[in-house]
Amino acid sequence: MPPQAPAATLAEIRTLLGELPGPDFEAGTAAALREAQLTKPAGALGRLEEITAWLATWQGKYPPVLNHPRTAVFAANHGVASRGVSAFPAAVTAQMVANFVAGGAAVNQLCKAVDGDLRVYEMALDQPTADFTEAPAMSEEECAKAIAYGMMAVEPGLDVMALGEMGIANTTSAAALCCGLFGGTTAEWVGPGTGVAGEALQRKIAVVDAAVAFHRPQFGDAFDVLRRLGGLELAAIVGAIMACRLARVPVLLDGYACTAAAAVLFAADKRALDHCLVAHRSAEPGHTRLLERIGKAPLLDLGMRLGEASGATLAVAVLKAGLACHTGMATFGEASVSNRDQ
Amino acid sequence: MPPQAPAATLAEIRTLLGELPGPDFEAGTAAALREAQLTKPAGALGRLEEITAWLATWQGKYPPVLNHPRTAVFAANHGVASRGVSAFPAAVTAQMVANFVAGGAAVNQLCKAVDGDLRVYEMALDQPTADFTEAPAMSEEECAKAIAYGMMAVEPGLDVMALGEMGIANTTSAAALCCGLFGGTTAEWVGPGTGVAGEALQRKIAVVDAAVAFHRPQFGDAFDVLRRLGGLELAAIVGAIMACRLARVPVLLDGYACTAAAAVLFAADKRALDHCLVAHRSAEPGHTRLLERIGKAPLLDLGMRLGEASGATLAVAVLKAGLACHTGMATFGEASVSNRDQ
Repeated sequence: MPPQAPAATLAEIRTLLGELPGPDFEAGTAAALREAQLTKPAGALGRLEEITAWLATWQGKYPPVLNHPRTAVFAANHGVASRGVSAFPAAVTAQMVANFVAGGAAVNQLCKAVDGDLRVYEMALDQPTADFTEAPAMSEEECAKAIAYGMMAVEPGLDVMALGEMGIANTTSAAALCCGLFGGTTAEWVGPGTGVAGEALQRKIAVVDAAVAFHRPQFGDAFDVLRRLGGLELAAIVGAIMACRLARVPVLLDGYACTAAAAVLFAADKRALDHCLVAHRSAEPGHTRLLERIGKAPLLDLGMRLGEASGATLAVAVLKAGLACHTGMATFGEASVSNRDQ
Repeated sequence: MPPQAPAATLAEIRTLLGELPGPDFEAGTAAALREAQLTKPAGALGRLEEITAWLATWQGKYPPVLNHPRTAVFAANHGVASRGVSAFPAAVTAQMVANFVAGGAAVNQLCKAVDGDLRVYEMALDQPTADFTEAPAMSEEECAKAIAYGMMAVEPGLDVMALGEMGIANTTSAAALCCGLFGGTTAEWVGPGTGVAGEALQRKIAVVDAAVAFHRPQFGDAFDVLRRLGGLELAAIVGAIMACRLARVPVLLDGYACTAAAAVLFAADKRALDHCLVAHRSAEPGHTRLLERIGKAPLLDLGMRLGEASGATLAVAVLKAGLACHTGMATFGEASVSNRDQ
């Protein structure tokens, strides 16, 4: 994490959350009006039809554009990785960041496939968060700084932002966050992650149990749960989501860890994720439960569970298809096609 | 339908079905071997991982390629349209074909989005099939000719074929076909199609009831059910699927009407659709029942119900993403990323 991340406190970030701009209903309505005139039975393009209205509503303009999609991947390490909760060693976080930089990861190929650019944000990989079974993962200051860092990844002029993460042990953090934010048993929120099963999965559940039991008596608001049980990359995603709202950049959320970070904002303000679509349903079982809690239906359901914004980036292809239909199709009148009511 | 469609009889087509080539396991295995070495937890790309092996197995080569996707839309009219089973008049079939030719339909935009080409096959729109509540929709000769016509749409050298249809009243035909092939009540197979509801939906159910009751005593094999209850465009899809298998072109099936045509082949030979993926789950309720019968899981589930190969064409984007990951990703060894077993 570079030293130039702007100073911010959690109190300032909480205040900012209350000041986020709302939807541009005028732009969204313009999209819906054209959609109804296109040469197809009403509703026949299914969820492709909601895409243009959503882009218009949150870009704040009609017609919306999709020329500059960006994928942002935040990478960080977790103290809790030392508890043996992942199938891979913590060193893999840095190795995968090198793989992103070299162009060899899945997300690199997916960015090329959707003609999007990729930014990878490496957050002090040699300084993992504290092991949250024993202490808060982050101090208030560390958490605020990571959120502010995520905000800096957002520039005006981006058409959509696909968000994701890399961090060995972060599905453990995500499960703890979800349990802290929404309750339920830890077993409901813990899944295989990179592929743990049997005894290792039981250990992962026990670790999350211990963490939640340790912190629950001190839980404050959602941001406090984030700093206690989250991670630097998850805090950065929180910041990026907020900054996208401010910059009028619609957001595609990736899988379990990314959506768990977003859920911090939902828990703080039910409207805070209105500019976000969930790109896909992760195979991680907790993701489906989380989507029910935040009331989002994923666009894709391909059994993916890789993270690194892979599902979010792939979904850009669906957005492009939806916008292309909306923009390029003829209306009933233009094509002299009989509508059902005519 | 041009006069040059080659002469073929249903008997010859039945014989050909028994002679279709099988899978190329060597190519498929080569894909699976590389997939296991790529820098991700095993299985973490979900269904994207099956794509390359499927393409290799049915293109009969490794690595497979996806430079020349084609979308083929077959259009025809149905005598049963005069029974008031659609929300749109039969004239819309020809109007939509003109819209395809002019570039104004959804499938045109989707073909552009996936960099594929589009062929539209207009099948004697002024000569609808017979009203199948009173007579077989097609004679044996007409059905065989339509199948042969569909075969002609396939050329060697295509990398994947997305198949679809346009034909007012063809979800009525699809429902009758499914009921004829698989049994069950007609109400299970009949849905809103272009958007019929209430009394009109009840009329659609009654029409399918009458048609199935009329023909059931004479049902022969699956091809006989096709000629009695199908349509020219559905018979052409049957032919295109067979020709793709012969030419080693993997197939993407579209929604309800397209999959119902494919189901004729499945009913005749359980292996006949092994080179086909179902691109998406249509919102038409019968499609989900049909997918269970033929044992196929759709790639996409976006609530689409437009036909015209829209879902099949969109799924080409998913195939491209899967192949791009397979081809472009680094292996654990190349990227010096620690694998879980090392």
